[in-house]
Amino acid sequence: MTEPSQPYSNLLHRSREIGLIDSASQLLSWDQETYMPPDSLTFRAEQLAHLGGWTHRLFTKPEVGDWINACEDHGFPADSDEVANVREWRRAYDRKTKVPAELVEELQRAQAFAREAWMEARQKSEFPIFQPHLEKLLQLSLRMADCWGYEQSRYDALLESYEPGARTVALKTLFSELRPVIAELGRIAGERSARLPADMLRGQYPIAAQQAFNREVAEALSFDFKAGRIDTTAHPFCSGIGPGDCRLTTRYNEADFTESLYGILHEAGHGMYEQGLRREAHGTPLGSAASLGIHESQSRLWENHVGRSRTFWEHWLPRAAKYFPELTRFSPEEVHASVNRVEPSFIRVEADEVTYDLHIILRFEIETRLIEGTLKVADVPHVWNEEFEKLMGLKVPNDALGCLQDIHWSFGSFGYFPTYMLGNLNASQLFHRATADLPDLQSQLGHGDYSSMLGWLRSKVHQHGQRFEPLQLMRSATGEATQARYHLDYLRVKFGKVRDLAS
Amino acid sequence: MTEPSQPYSNLLHRSREIGLIDSASQLLSWDQETYMPPDSLTFRAEQLAHLGGWTHRLFTKPEVGDWINACEDHGFPADSDEVANVREWRRAYDRKTKVPAELVEELQRAQAFAREAWMEARQKSEFPIFQPHLEKLLQLSLRMADCWGYEQSRYDALLESYEPGARTVALKTLFSELRPVIAELGRIAGERSARLPADMLRGQYPIAAQQAFNREVAEALSFDFKAGRIDTTAHPFCSGIGPGDCRLTTRYNEADFTESLYGILHEAGHGMYEQGLRREAHGTPLGSAASLGIHESQSRLWENHVGRSRTFWEHWLPRAAKYFPELTRFSPEEVHASVNRVEPSFIRVEADEVTYDLHIILRFEIETRLIEGTLKVADVPHVWNEEFEKLMGLKVPNDALGCLQDIHWSFGSFGYFPTYMLGNLNASQLFHRATADLPDLQSQLGHGDYSSMLGWLRSKVHQHGQRFEPLQLMRSATGEATQARYHLDYLRVKFGKVRDLAS
Repeated sequence: MTEPSQPYSNLLHRSREIGLIDSASQLLSWDQETYMPPDSLTFRAEQLAHLGGWTHRLFTKPEVGDWINACEDHGFPADSDEVANVREWRRAYDRKTKVPAELVEELQRAQAFAREAWMEARQKSEFPIFQPHLEKLLQLSLRMADCWGYEQSRYDALLESYEPGARTVALKTLFSELRPVIAELGRIAGERSARLPADMLRGQYPIAAQQAFNREVAEALSFDFKAGRIDTTAHPFCSGIGPGDCRLTTRYNEADFTESLYGILHEAGHGMYEQGLRREAHGTPLGSAASLGIHESQSRLWENHVGRSRTFWEHWLPRAAKYFPELTRFSPEEVHASVNRVEPSFIRVEADEVTYDLHIILRFEIETRLIEGTLKVADVPHVWNEEFEKLMGLKVPNDALGCLQDIHWSFGSFGYFPTYMLGNLNASQLFHRATADLPDLQSQLGHGDYSSMLGWLRSKVHQHGQRFEPLQLMRSATGEATQARYHLDYLRVKFGKVRDLAS
Repeated sequence: MTEPSQPYSNLLHRSREIGLIDSASQLLSWDQETYMPPDSLTFRAEQLAHLGGWTHRLFTKPEVGDWINACEDHGFPADSDEVANVREWRRAYDRKTKVPAELVEELQRAQAFAREAWMEARQKSEFPIFQPHLEKLLQLSLRMADCWGYEQSRYDALLESYEPGARTVALKTLFSELRPVIAELGRIAGERSARLPADMLRGQYPIAAQQAFNREVAEALSFDFKAGRIDTTAHPFCSGIGPGDCRLTTRYNEADFTESLYGILHEAGHGMYEQGLRREAHGTPLGSAASLGIHESQSRLWENHVGRSRTFWEHWLPRAAKYFPELTRFSPEEVHASVNRVEPSFIRVEADEVTYDLHIILRFEIETRLIEGTLKVADVPHVWNEEFEKLMGLKVPNDALGCLQDIHWSFGSFGYFPTYMLGNLNASQLFHRATADLPDLQSQLGHGDYSSMLGWLRSKVHQHGQRFEPLQLMRSATGEATQARYHLDYLRVKFGKVRDLAS
């Protein structure tokens, strides 16, 4: 038997060292979006590339491979911390070392050009400007997938970057189960919502008051401001900078306070996950989030299952009215109906909870066809527009409102989009299970008491980090792997119940 | 002849790499003072130590010594960029490699304990709590000085960390020339100022208005906000984070707008120096500030020679009154007199322009005696209080208001304090020379036109980085090394002229 303690502690040490440096990169990136003066953009990009290159070299040294081999040969107990960490180091090491440096560099160059081309293409709404870049990125992604290897589908190899253990065939089954039901629900709820004025809550909501109200809500959820903060950016995000330091951002629309509020509810969901990871395990797999699909389940659970519920507004509307006196003219039911208004629209990030899923389904279908070679890049706009009309009943007027809207493809991020759907499915499944496990949950939520909800997520999800792969984590938390039916049930019940105020 | 191009470009590359990483550390430090959540303090300290250790290792590798040797053997032309960079790399390399790692670590440990002890000692005003730590730091500093080596005085070796080329014997001459004149001037100006109410400008100055006014002033000076910003901290500072990124901070007193304003004038002086360094030389000696004494000359010139002049208030008072209507009741002469009020006081950082120098003189005298072994640590409070009373005419009531007031000794930073005085002397000498070189300067300053002043500093000081050692830079800019007389003349003229409003 080999003596694993030294190789394992070497790996721990290296992993934590990389965690320290990655955390500096996180701060540099956060700062770039929040406070950095514009003139230092080029230098900041150099800095981030340098730190990223450094951690890449630290983790891909042959000694790291030797340490992992030694740990694997030793055979730690199946449920030990060690075995989980070693499994994830192996995964990361293989993915980083299987791709030749030339291919990584070629991809980085292609991404830089593609991003610029995408920006121009979107601005002019001319897909042909972006097309050769997307073709190049697709070709490079296929080469990456072949380096990484896969059993059934090349798309599996790409998915693995974002959602370890997810398989294309399983996702296709899920998505085909979801598609007709959600499309139908979108139509029905959309028709009903059409009788509700779109701008019902429109008013004058001073930014300082929005900030104070959002903070009160985030504190009530238990987002920890001793270990976090909120700033303003063009696009909301959450950055887990390091242990004891998780930062949320949102944006403010003076005419609509719900925009910043739901930004914060979403990002605080991510943030409480980060804050629930074990601080002492920072930099190691056990101190890291399980996957994008699990991360997104946390944000969507707080944003939608908690934040877009009727009980939420029963509790919070009187409190919101202290900051925004004009809200006194609304009932909780009216605000609830307004923030759950369903209307097919072109832009994913502005979509309601029902039609949002249709955007993801569409992009997943197109992505998998591109990777499987059954769709040419040149045909993407045509297919997009055709399928979009089938799903949403809307004619896409131009590519900027269609297949050019999202930035992901300009990074070559094929395989990222399905994690948005997994997030929604996992959120519904976790919330369903929590409701069963905690009989008083609905009443607590109605009183603005979120401690049981958060405690349940802490114990079932947060504290485990990457101890389990995502599907195994869902099994451990809910008794089964990710299913479609809890999300469908949730949507059916909720969007069959929205009060029809105009009738 | 050796071929120097490869060693030199290796050094350039290494130096720039270290610059990238140091800039990340700068941002981490800036963030620690501005926006960092409190819970991540320990982790941030680990991060900074890690990055600092990394750049230390990068620069102290034997290959760096070999490259420097090769460049020195080659003999670049005396006025070339190369010769200046190599000279400074040599200085830094020798200082970093001459001290054994154990001594560096012992000092770091001692600093950590000393800082805590100093905080407790100051809070309780009990010097004996700090005394053993100061003794330890003194002993370690002497050992460091012996590692570095010196010709005449051990204090020279310590000075060299902050002010390359400065010598104790020369400073003693300067300081003994300054001491009696400034002490006398402090008494005279203090007596005259005593008839001026201390709180003349006291009022209600909303923070948002102070921020807007300060920004207008900083923009007028030409501090570049595309390459910089202003934030709020407990103690004002300037951080040159990287090329195109220099950040100032100040603090706000709602009862006194001049506190944040003079904070900004001072820090903007530092900031414009940083912004005037050659961006493309970032990370190399030619892209770095010459010394602390030169840096401080820039802040003091803008704060005092420009900002505390009568012409400044003739121009800015009507503009300030737009933000603070209550100022309309004052004349520029009254504001000028108020911001130049002289009054002996215990705390250096709150001192006026005249008595400030006395604080530095006192500490320099005590520091040099400690290093030379003619004063024991245990006797510091007694000597401090005795000398303070001679200089200021005030009895020190306790050590918190006396020798425990400043943090510098808790880092073991012996040799730092004289750079504050050099900053004042250099500022007066540079301003005197600029006035001679630019006949229209006073009239331009009176119109709020700072372009000639800044242009002169850019050409004489900023653009050179570390091309010259500080004394040589002063010679190149003003025709002579740092002198006492320009500063004494400035103080005599100015504080002989302050209007006696009460008479």
